[in-house]
Amino acid sequence: MNKGIYSQIMKELKKAHDEDYHFSDGRILGSMCTKPHNIALKTHSMFVESNLGNPGLYPGTKKLEKKVIKMLGSLLHNRNPYGHITGGGTESNITALWIAKKITKKKEIIFPESAHFSFHKACDLMDLKPVEIGLDEKYRIRVDEAEDKISDNTACVAGVAGTTEFGAVDPIDKLSDICAEKNFLHVDAAFGGFVIPFLKELGHNLPDFDFKLDGVCSITVDPHKMGMASIPAGALLLREKKYLKSISRKPVYLTGVQACLSGTRCSASVPGVYAAMKILGKDGYRKIVKSCMDVTAYLSKRFKEIGLTLPVEPEMNIVCAKVKNPDRIIRMLDKKGWKISKTKKPKCIRVVVMPHVTRKVVDNFIPDLEKVCRKNGEI
Amino acid sequence: MNKGIYSQIMKELKKAHDEDYHFSDGRILGSMCTKPHNIALKTHSMFVESNLGNPGLYPGTKKLEKKVIKMLGSLLHNRNPYGHITGGGTESNITALWIAKKITKKKEIIFPESAHFSFHKACDLMDLKPVEIGLDEKYRIRVDEAEDKISDNTACVAGVAGTTEFGAVDPIDKLSDICAEKNFLHVDAAFGGFVIPFLKELGHNLPDFDFKLDGVCSITVDPHKMGMASIPAGALLLREKKYLKSISRKPVYLTGVQACLSGTRCSASVPGVYAAMKILGKDGYRKIVKSCMDVTAYLSKRFKEIGLTLPVEPEMNIVCAKVKNPDRIIRMLDKKGWKISKTKKPKCIRVVVMPHVTRKVVDNFIPDLEKVCRKNGEI
Repeated sequence: MNKGIYSQIMKELKKAHDEDYHFSDGRILGSMCTKPHNIALKTHSMFVESNLGNPGLYPGTKKLEKKVIKMLGSLLHNRNPYGHITGGGTESNITALWIAKKITKKKEIIFPESAHFSFHKACDLMDLKPVEIGLDEKYRIRVDEAEDKISDNTACVAGVAGTTEFGAVDPIDKLSDICAEKNFLHVDAAFGGFVIPFLKELGHNLPDFDFKLDGVCSITVDPHKMGMASIPAGALLLREKKYLKSISRKPVYLTGVQACLSGTRCSASVPGVYAAMKILGKDGYRKIVKSCMDVTAYLSKRFKEIGLTLPVEPEMNIVCAKVKNPDRIIRMLDKKGWKISKTKKPKCIRVVVMPHVTRKVVDNFIPDLEKVCRKNGEI
Repeated sequence: MNKGIYSQIMKELKKAHDEDYHFSDGRILGSMCTKPHNIALKTHSMFVESNLGNPGLYPGTKKLEKKVIKMLGSLLHNRNPYGHITGGGTESNITALWIAKKITKKKEIIFPESAHFSFHKACDLMDLKPVEIGLDEKYRIRVDEAEDKISDNTACVAGVAGTTEFGAVDPIDKLSDICAEKNFLHVDAAFGGFVIPFLKELGHNLPDFDFKLDGVCSITVDPHKMGMASIPAGALLLREKKYLKSISRKPVYLTGVQACLSGTRCSASVPGVYAAMKILGKDGYRKIVKSCMDVTAYLSKRFKEIGLTLPVEPEMNIVCAKVKNPDRIIRMLDKKGWKISKTKKPKCIRVVVMPHVTRKVVDNFIPDLEKVCRKNGEI
């Protein structure tokens, strides 16, 4: 190999890497991912060849995936779950709706206005009819409206345990009551799955949202969000084996059965999910969640101190503040090196208080935010 | 952190890693992936946080993706391609059919019996009607039959440039003629995209299969197969911008537009695709392909020498041999540590001659194969 070219390319790639933002910079305030646990990073490289699309070649990784699904089940009150690691919440949600379509042979999907855009993507992909349900004053699905919309055409009712925009937790317990034994109930806990169980342990008053509820058929939960795993590590958990069977096929040329949307699967992150969950344990995650919630409270206070209004008191580690022109605020903060996000209804700026968003990061951020808001007449 | 737990888990993961097969062992004979280029491995770790589902955070990685799409276009005779890096061939094929469905508002997909099972998966997912076309004596699509089946309901005609089972190259030039300006033609060159261009340079008599042909609308090509990149690195290339637009959406809370199936995307492999393509260049890939074809010829000869019959002379680096009971052969070879694959029609054992399958590997393999075949009365 020509060493000159090699080092020239590496130089170019290092430059590209420098242009990217990184969690450890403390500048990414609008992402639901974070710097993975050290052991996740280490094992990601080690297992870089792993591809559970061809499981016969990777029996070691496959065993770890099985253990991970079991551990996720244990976290979400199911001792005998089915499912697999996916590329992320979108793949898990699409797969859940695919299963619901197959099982019910029906076409309507009921979900809240606050649902992740992957629900609309899934409907577009599969020609399903989205039936959007309005929200209450805390941005949670209106259960009575959902109940009204359930019909003979309903393939699936979906609730969100930790919405993307405001971190709202839908009353999944009530959805379970209206669905029980009649309708397929899917729960998108991509973000909340690694937060809500620990918030409940910490005494927060949140509804049950997982397999503890009889009506819940499937759950999306992303270890690569608050689970401290590396991307790509989503998961889809299922109550019944027949759900997986409805989408499974046995390719002749591969080893084993496939029951997922992806063919080839990057499985380098699977050992890291296992390791992070084993090492952190419930105590470790509870501490992480506690610490994020402390910063969430602190950030909320600082927002209010500079004259901003919250649309709702945060139930999870996401803080929004109402502004008239979020795009302009985002653009001006971007120039100062801050990467924040926004919401649509109501118009807000949005910060996801991931573990890399520390009190110190907040202290660095607020003066810049205050200047920008003042300049724009937002405060 | 408790160091005892950490080292205990690492020990467990090392054990799992040892249970997995690895390309460098020279035992994996049935995979379309291989040990990635060194620089791909190195940069995969470096860019492990990259997620082009949220491109505003990763402008460096995004630029590399754009360059990669351009380079892939250049390889496949398109100076101005659209598209993106995907999780693999399945995602690319599903996305192509999704686009065809959206553009045409029709439901029938015409593809050869030899098509990858992701076409059936896509049809099941999207309620499309698969119209399977028979094969000629070299396992290529029967163009006359495909032409007969084209109707007002046709959403897409798909051909395969390098089939999974036999490495057959469909006459894409003829498919292009029958589709031109009337039908959406998708080419699955997941495996062949990094092989056929170089075989043609080496003087092999193969049809055109890429954007050189006016009728070709989209191409699946997997850098993580013969492109020497790390998983997940598939790609979907498109001729027209409107194809991407048909599936694009702008999530409020994210930076930038999304026009792909996945939400979060593991983009750690993108810099490696760029680097491998830059460093290897056309000369490098041609040498790799030449070397694989030399081993292919050698393996074909050795198969015949021990009394096996090939269903077809290999056009690409895949060698099959007819056997009565492939499952038993595979099981017995598995016990000896060999991971080979099989085909269905005709029943064959199947070896994909990837770069890690060297002449030496073949020399190690043949005696074990011969024993097993003799024991089973196959030879």
